[in-house]
Amino acid sequence: MANPLSEDVLVDPVVLTRALVDVPSVSRNESAIADFVAEVLRTAPHLSVDRLGNTVMARTDLGREQRVVLAGHLDTVPLNGNFPSTVVDDLIYGCGASDMKSGVALALHLAATLPDPAYDITYLFYEAEEIDSQHNGLRHVAEQRPEWLVADFAVLLEPTYGVVEAGCQGTLQASVHVGGRRAHTARAWRGINAIHAAGEVLRRLDDYRPRTVTIDGCTYREGLNAVRISGGVAGNVVPDECTVQVNMRFAPDRTEKQALEHLHEVFAGYEVELIDSAPGAMPGLDAAPAREFLAAVGEAPAAKLGWTDVARFAALGVPALNYGPGDPLLAHAPDEHVEIGKIRDGAATLHRWLASYAI
Amino acid sequence: MANPLSEDVLVDPVVLTRALVDVPSVSRNESAIADFVAEVLRTAPHLSVDRLGNTVMARTDLGREQRVVLAGHLDTVPLNGNFPSTVVDDLIYGCGASDMKSGVALALHLAATLPDPAYDITYLFYEAEEIDSQHNGLRHVAEQRPEWLVADFAVLLEPTYGVVEAGCQGTLQASVHVGGRRAHTARAWRGINAIHAAGEVLRRLDDYRPRTVTIDGCTYREGLNAVRISGGVAGNVVPDECTVQVNMRFAPDRTEKQALEHLHEVFAGYEVELIDSAPGAMPGLDAAPAREFLAAVGEAPAAKLGWTDVARFAALGVPALNYGPGDPLLAHAPDEHVEIGKIRDGAATLHRWLASYAI
Repeated sequence: MANPLSEDVLVDPVVLTRALVDVPSVSRNESAIADFVAEVLRTAPHLSVDRLGNTVMARTDLGREQRVVLAGHLDTVPLNGNFPSTVVDDLIYGCGASDMKSGVALALHLAATLPDPAYDITYLFYEAEEIDSQHNGLRHVAEQRPEWLVADFAVLLEPTYGVVEAGCQGTLQASVHVGGRRAHTARAWRGINAIHAAGEVLRRLDDYRPRTVTIDGCTYREGLNAVRISGGVAGNVVPDECTVQVNMRFAPDRTEKQALEHLHEVFAGYEVELIDSAPGAMPGLDAAPAREFLAAVGEAPAAKLGWTDVARFAALGVPALNYGPGDPLLAHAPDEHVEIGKIRDGAATLHRWLASYAI
Repeated sequence: MANPLSEDVLVDPVVLTRALVDVPSVSRNESAIADFVAEVLRTAPHLSVDRLGNTVMARTDLGREQRVVLAGHLDTVPLNGNFPSTVVDDLIYGCGASDMKSGVALALHLAATLPDPAYDITYLFYEAEEIDSQHNGLRHVAEQRPEWLVADFAVLLEPTYGVVEAGCQGTLQASVHVGGRRAHTARAWRGINAIHAAGEVLRRLDDYRPRTVTIDGCTYREGLNAVRISGGVAGNVVPDECTVQVNMRFAPDRTEKQALEHLHEVFAGYEVELIDSAPGAMPGLDAAPAREFLAAVGEAPAAKLGWTDVARFAALGVPALNYGPGDPLLAHAPDEHVEIGKIRDGAATLHRWLASYAI
């Protein structure tokens, strides 16, 4: 397959979106798309390019006072009868159209066509966001090439339907264990039924009133939910164990440690076992490039409630937000698509922001 | 293997217990032991013998006014390092020693040595009690040879440690379904958490006060227990379903239908789905042979709380009770054993009861 990312394609983010969708790049199969991206970026004299696995980094070094990162993942979930792309009216259909090749197209278009931006820019096109985080290209960069992430501000081009979604909430999974004592159900009074006793855990969940936290004008709604429950030995045995798995979504003013401490308070008297957690990210909208970005968008930001890779920037002290043309509700759907108008709007907004200094 | 059930062995129920333990008869492998039992019974001129699969029936036809059944199953749970039998002090160890070859030994000893009993007696040695009830030999007899079960009273020689355990409780398994609405846990307020909602089902179980019912001096303690709970879709999804499986043990004054109706009342507002049920059995201690049996035992009867095959007799209108030398708490255990004294006591009691007319 010849490199489809020709000069004619790179100048138009809509055409570029289709071209990117038409290079299959299901997670763990990103080498072709990464090769194409690296190849075209290496031809741009204003960029220096490096690579880590199938993650491609390109950066300007113009001596600007501030540096921003534009980042997007190259991989998609598995194809689902939605390859290659098709166009119906003003919609581009295809696997990754929304999540997030239209966002990647904006960054790649700017990288190729904006030689003299207002800030120095680091572009990151990374692998393996859609699968287990051990493979995540941005994680590998943070661990092995942290200097690539040094910046004053970052925009992650995840689908937000053109809205600025700032920071993100943290997430934590834990098990709450309830014990009992086994007995034959024909002599149940000799035992202690752990499933019955778990009713108190469920009552606390039902009574729980999650916080609503507003930071930089963004309102985060926390949540605490049972996501799994299991218990039972056999049909004639009073069970001696019941486990309730809970998922806590916490506003970025709490650390993971504080979130876990909170769970220990909520479930005082029960064994609480951490399964895993990921930190939130503060919206960080007071940095100068962030304020100018918001001015370019011209609309109030909202809080990002789900977890995204912006938290990896936040963990390194880089304020970061989500902004992309795709519709997050269409991500991973067989009829995934993106509105051509949203791509053009996004390109215009980013251009307004990044070209302002030069104009 | 030559038939070990020689005349010398049959006259002593203790020696006979060991001989029976030493013929392996794990469920579905009862043909050898059934062959041996049928062979020796056919040599007794006072018995007529018939067979259904590996279930052996032998009966007297002396024209007595009343008929009793003595029944025991020939099979055992799988061997577990406890074969063949061993004797330590006054204990016989081995697979099936308690459940229920010592009980079978009592019946087989009487069949061979009591040509002129007070009642006509039907002896039943049946297969496949320890596995799924579709294989149960007594069930097959009830369905295909119901005339073998016609009697005024039945004794099932299940282990009761020498106590009369009368009738049995019924048992019923049902699922209680709790619904909800799925949502992403980052936007949990859009969903309805079915696991949280199941807390109300567990509260009702925890608040439930089971009945205690006394019939013919036997006290039955009912019970209602969650025996399994499951729910959950994924770690980031508000679950839309939670299922609580409950096991009800009900006194024999309720039918299966009434027990299910009771569950519908307890869980009003929820979908209750019957999984399976088995009826209880009234103690039926007012039949003349039952009263004489109790007199021979000389101790007050207790209620049988677990479900046993006595319910199959009760369903045919035959009062039935459990009485055997084994300890029910040792059934299915690797160190299963039976006390030699309990075997001798049981043989003496049964002899006192059944020989009274002749003496």
